[in-house]
Amino acid sequence: MLSQEMMKLGKVRSVIRDIFEYGKKRAAEIGAENIFDFSLGNPSIPAPPEVDLAIKELTESGNTVALHGYTSAPGDPLVRQTVANHIATKFGVPITADSIYMTAGAAASLCITLKAMVVVGDEVIAFAPFFPEYKVFAEAAGAKLVVSKPFPTDLQIDTDLFQTLVTPATKAVIINSPNNPSGVVYREDTIKKVCAILCAKSEEYGHPIYLISDEPYRELVYGDVRVPYLMNYYQNTIVCYSYSKALSLPGERIGYIAVSPQSEDAKDLFAAIAGAGRALGYVCAPALFQKVIAKCIDATSDIRAYAKNRDAIYNGLTALGYNCIKPDGAFYLFVKSPEPDAYAFCEKAKKFELLLVPGDDFGCPGYVRIAYCVNPSLIQRSMPSFANLIGLYK
Amino acid sequence: MLSQEMMKLGKVRSVIRDIFEYGKKRAAEIGAENIFDFSLGNPSIPAPPEVDLAIKELTESGNTVALHGYTSAPGDPLVRQTVANHIATKFGVPITADSIYMTAGAAASLCITLKAMVVVGDEVIAFAPFFPEYKVFAEAAGAKLVVSKPFPTDLQIDTDLFQTLVTPATKAVIINSPNNPSGVVYREDTIKKVCAILCAKSEEYGHPIYLISDEPYRELVYGDVRVPYLMNYYQNTIVCYSYSKALSLPGERIGYIAVSPQSEDAKDLFAAIAGAGRALGYVCAPALFQKVIAKCIDATSDIRAYAKNRDAIYNGLTALGYNCIKPDGAFYLFVKSPEPDAYAFCEKAKKFELLLVPGDDFGCPGYVRIAYCVNPSLIQRSMPSFANLIGLYK
Repeated sequence: MLSQEMMKLGKVRSVIRDIFEYGKKRAAEIGAENIFDFSLGNPSIPAPPEVDLAIKELTESGNTVALHGYTSAPGDPLVRQTVANHIATKFGVPITADSIYMTAGAAASLCITLKAMVVVGDEVIAFAPFFPEYKVFAEAAGAKLVVSKPFPTDLQIDTDLFQTLVTPATKAVIINSPNNPSGVVYREDTIKKVCAILCAKSEEYGHPIYLISDEPYRELVYGDVRVPYLMNYYQNTIVCYSYSKALSLPGERIGYIAVSPQSEDAKDLFAAIAGAGRALGYVCAPALFQKVIAKCIDATSDIRAYAKNRDAIYNGLTALGYNCIKPDGAFYLFVKSPEPDAYAFCEKAKKFELLLVPGDDFGCPGYVRIAYCVNPSLIQRSMPSFANLIGLYK
Repeated sequence: MLSQEMMKLGKVRSVIRDIFEYGKKRAAEIGAENIFDFSLGNPSIPAPPEVDLAIKELTESGNTVALHGYTSAPGDPLVRQTVANHIATKFGVPITADSIYMTAGAAASLCITLKAMVVVGDEVIAFAPFFPEYKVFAEAAGAKLVVSKPFPTDLQIDTDLFQTLVTPATKAVIINSPNNPSGVVYREDTIKKVCAILCAKSEEYGHPIYLISDEPYRELVYGDVRVPYLMNYYQNTIVCYSYSKALSLPGERIGYIAVSPQSEDAKDLFAAIAGAGRALGYVCAPALFQKVIAKCIDATSDIRAYAKNRDAIYNGLTALGYNCIKPDGAFYLFVKSPEPDAYAFCEKAKKFELLLVPGDDFGCPGYVRIAYCVNPSLIQRSMPSFANLIGLYK
């Protein structure tokens, strides 16, 4: 008599969580230092000192009733103003506080945004490889998730294929760049093509197709790579942001939804987002961390450490003969499995205490994801295991 | 092309919020000290000192990666253990950590619980007067909210009426005691009757009817009043708790769902709750405040201040000739409107700068709610206005 759908979702752990739990069990057996766990995207670099300093200042300010009290549902006015100013300055978008809705992180941002717009029969397009929970979120909102496969060589968007997938039922398209799980940053020319298709199809079908930019990894890019800010390329854009990765605060659940002020129905869209937040039980984003964000708006964790890890693992594995997509951002390396079945490969990896995640759930069979947000020494120590693993295929 | 339902929810502000916004506007016009705002249930007593002390200790502990990192979806194991031990000790229920699911507050607890169990065609019963968002939450989960009217004299549950409302479509019943908006605590004999009806009907229909106890005001009771702990009266009970009121942390969004270990399908129910949490975008409850809760499990705000307010406003208004339900808990006074139309009465109250909330949205027309979680001096200073207001009806 319970919801069978919810029961199934609760029982079928994600493959990532499964491997993570195996790792904890195995660590208890042979010692954590002998396990090379690359399964979870949990930041390994601490929050910048500004964060704990902001918490200290706020709690010592004396007005704890206001500090821990309800904010209005879309967030504290000053916090929304600070976020809007930050976006306006950094990306040249004329956005104001009334387009910012503070949320409990990226998952909340996505669920609220989808719930605000989806009606029965709608489809939402995601580009593989994609974060597996997109399917859960889209279906919970009542939509069908349609997957657009990438170019096999560089995992950029195959815009010709994408064009064939857009139908009158397409309500929204989700872009995640820098990408989890591939680390790929979509090039500006790719973004322009996607947006041109969306413009043409919106025009053809006589209704907007929304572009949802899921960008928790926006600040995590290496070298001189630039991540195009989608509001500057497409009118009907909604940014779903989280401070989980840039400020290493994944457990605190703090982020925002930013509705492009150029959206053709910006006011209605914002109202629907407010309604969806209410319907899903999000009363307000965590109050203390809203204020922490306002105080730390220009801070990030020490991203150079991830850059070093990126080089160490990418160079190490390619030298061993692995075929890897070079990541420009995020903290994931996507590696071609030396055998077609990535599950079988991951099982073999376990024999060498390497915990990798098969790409199948991300919509890319034949790949594995390596989360390199780990201690640098773990990467170094894991290399002999990676050498032994690929030795099986030589 | 947006969800019309969500847009409507976002645009139609709750009547409480409307009055609150009016109050802010009016305060700007004539000065905040001249407004008697009784509209919002925002705790006026600060969090106990244990809370900020716990925050300080945790942030100074040095391990900020773990502190601000993801916890597992149902919560940090030690926090769940602490909550379970607290319930077991305080209420004599043999509950363990694996029945506790940490959430982002009571609204999240309710939305997740309803989503876990509701299937198409289900009904959920609430007892008037009830928190208006129950309707939003039940409908978002796909159920119809059925309202059981109270006895008009004391606003206790009319169990004869309730019995006629339970049908094979009834999936769950929500009890909120101490009650928002009436301050009533349901008596033990009432609870026993409700539970007997639920037992008989579950038996008759061959499936469990769940009892959802929404109890954010559990600790806010006055005198020697005892709030029956529902798990001790009914097998298929789910407790939705929030620390918003007891610890004055409404903005921090921290609470839990506790599934009775005696539930006939406890494991499946817990799995469905985990699945629903995932589907609604709740990754984990805010991490820092999970750990704060564990450190402050026995603390509460200084509830005596609310007891003093209760006496001041109840005695003051009854002396003036108002007809009030004497509250045993929470921080609300429910007052009979001297004219049948509570909206009209509230409009007249505004002329004396008194901001009251009509009971209609709570399912009790003809009443108004006064939230007395305010500065004691506000109650005192408001009395001449209340005198003038009732003078209109003499």
